[in-house]
Amino acid sequence: MASEFELIARHFTRPTRHTILGVGDDAALVQPRPGMQLVVTTDLLAAGTHFLADTDPANLGWKSLAVNLSDLAAMGAEPRWAVIAAALPEPDEAWIAAFARGLFEAAERFDVDVIGGDTTRGPLTLCPTVFGEVPAGGALTRGAGRPGDDVWISGQPGRAALGLAQLRQAARLAPDAAGECIAALERPLPRVALGLALRGLARAAIDMSDGLLADLGHILERSALGAELELERLPLAPLVAAGGDRRLALDCLLGGGDDYELIFTAAPTMRSDIEALSAKLDLPLHRIGCLVDGAPVTLVRDAEGRPVTPGRRGYEHFAD
Amino acid sequence: MASEFELIARHFTRPTRHTILGVGDDAALVQPRPGMQLVVTTDLLAAGTHFLADTDPANLGWKSLAVNLSDLAAMGAEPRWAVIAAALPEPDEAWIAAFARGLFEAAERFDVDVIGGDTTRGPLTLCPTVFGEVPAGGALTRGAGRPGDDVWISGQPGRAALGLAQLRQAARLAPDAAGECIAALERPLPRVALGLALRGLARAAIDMSDGLLADLGHILERSALGAELELERLPLAPLVAAGGDRRLALDCLLGGGDDYELIFTAAPTMRSDIEALSAKLDLPLHRIGCLVDGAPVTLVRDAEGRPVTPGRRGYEHFAD
Repeated sequence: MASEFELIARHFTRPTRHTILGVGDDAALVQPRPGMQLVVTTDLLAAGTHFLADTDPANLGWKSLAVNLSDLAAMGAEPRWAVIAAALPEPDEAWIAAFARGLFEAAERFDVDVIGGDTTRGPLTLCPTVFGEVPAGGALTRGAGRPGDDVWISGQPGRAALGLAQLRQAARLAPDAAGECIAALERPLPRVALGLALRGLARAAIDMSDGLLADLGHILERSALGAELELERLPLAPLVAAGGDRRLALDCLLGGGDDYELIFTAAPTMRSDIEALSAKLDLPLHRIGCLVDGAPVTLVRDAEGRPVTPGRRGYEHFAD
Repeated sequence: MASEFELIARHFTRPTRHTILGVGDDAALVQPRPGMQLVVTTDLLAAGTHFLADTDPANLGWKSLAVNLSDLAAMGAEPRWAVIAAALPEPDEAWIAAFARGLFEAAERFDVDVIGGDTTRGPLTLCPTVFGEVPAGGALTRGAGRPGDDVWISGQPGRAALGLAQLRQAARLAPDAAGECIAALERPLPRVALGLALRGLARAAIDMSDGLLADLGHILERSALGAELELERLPLAPLVAAGGDRRLALDCLLGGGDDYELIFTAAPTMRSDIEALSAKLDLPLHRIGCLVDGAPVTLVRDAEGRPVTPGRRGYEHFAD
């Protein structure tokens, strides 16, 4: 049986592109570029809470990095480096190799150097920490929204929740739609290019990990504003087409997490620039409502202006 | 029951001293000082593997940061920032408050800003990641040892292992010694000031987390050298006095981890400077042997030059 050191050396030591000293010393050494601020985020993913213990390890490797890159995207930051700590119940080399393969697929795709980590025995747990760079003063934050800002979302949120419903046999999706929704759940694509392009265009931004209403709620809390969304403007039709159930589609869109699309706000004067960006990135950007003065709550109104009551809220760990 | 967000806000949001944006957004923002390289290290501590689930949470908070600061010390880096991710089996606010108290005691003592984190449900697991700064080219690495270098160790390694033996009732220490050894185990003091002072004095350095022989072994591997240690020069007497058993003392000194003292190598021309540093820091620095050409193994010789066989090796997770 290979030792911890051998396993790490074999699977996690790859050439780096912008790192002074990577895996193998007490710590890694990197040099942020002059004038750049460092953007740092960490996540802990526990088997049973965030994923099932029998999840495909390559998908898990991808996702464990992708969800953190999504936080960088939401800050308008350029991904640069990552460290990954892991507890594993037993040193299963095939599992480790597949996990590393998925992790490095994401790392290569987003030009991230994996510069360190830690492995130990314990209940299956993953803790990636990623670092990006942003020009001083250029970061997008949750608290920068202003009254009258448009509220935008990227892509097709709700697919990951539909995929999860399918896996749990709580939905019966058409085969093509099922594949796409499960891929959205298992191989989310962090909106890194969008985040970079939104510097100077957007005001507040956040990524959708807990669901549209929950994550928009964080923008509202930090910006001390409310939001009004128009049901008509929500990209509901593709979810209804996939799942065949309008109520489920709405719940997944408003309350489903794990899509890692971005929510951002921008001045109405930016609409044409944002539409041009959508075309350039080949990524749908939906203007779904606006920020308003008032308590940090989101009202969703139907075509007649009547409030819609969502069926569930974003997922909050530890909530009662 | 308070939500995750409320618990974090209540216990982990403290004023920062050198941070642009701390806890509460998608990611934290910091700005390394011009010309400084960033030193990054992460650790995963799992209940049952690294600590007992009923360990005093304040001590655990201290230690979870201290062990990572020790990695920075071994690089000659100045601690600056930390993020901490945690999985907790249930949201026990008293536990969280005590953990945060210990964590921030260490953070304040070593001038570290806690800038972010993540909490979730799961088997008790802690994952701190810390960041320090070092002037470009100034880091101490494992691979910088040269033949003929003296090998030095700081403080009194072996006490933490004696403390653990006492807690496991495998040793009967004198009451004063027991207190000191258990404190070395539960509240280790990372050698941050020593690491900073060793820039320019030392060549290779590492901290002792797995034990003297195991950690010196990492220097030997990376420096492609062997080592010869003199039994007579090892600080064994205080351990024998504490534990009353010479064999146990030697095992704890050579193989016991968790002390977080430093091992470093330096040219013999540096001896008087290092002795002066020891006096200045009021910290014993023991010159215990030297690096030699040859295979990356450590020979310990007694006064007659005969090899001593250590009873156990450093602790390696996953080793067979």
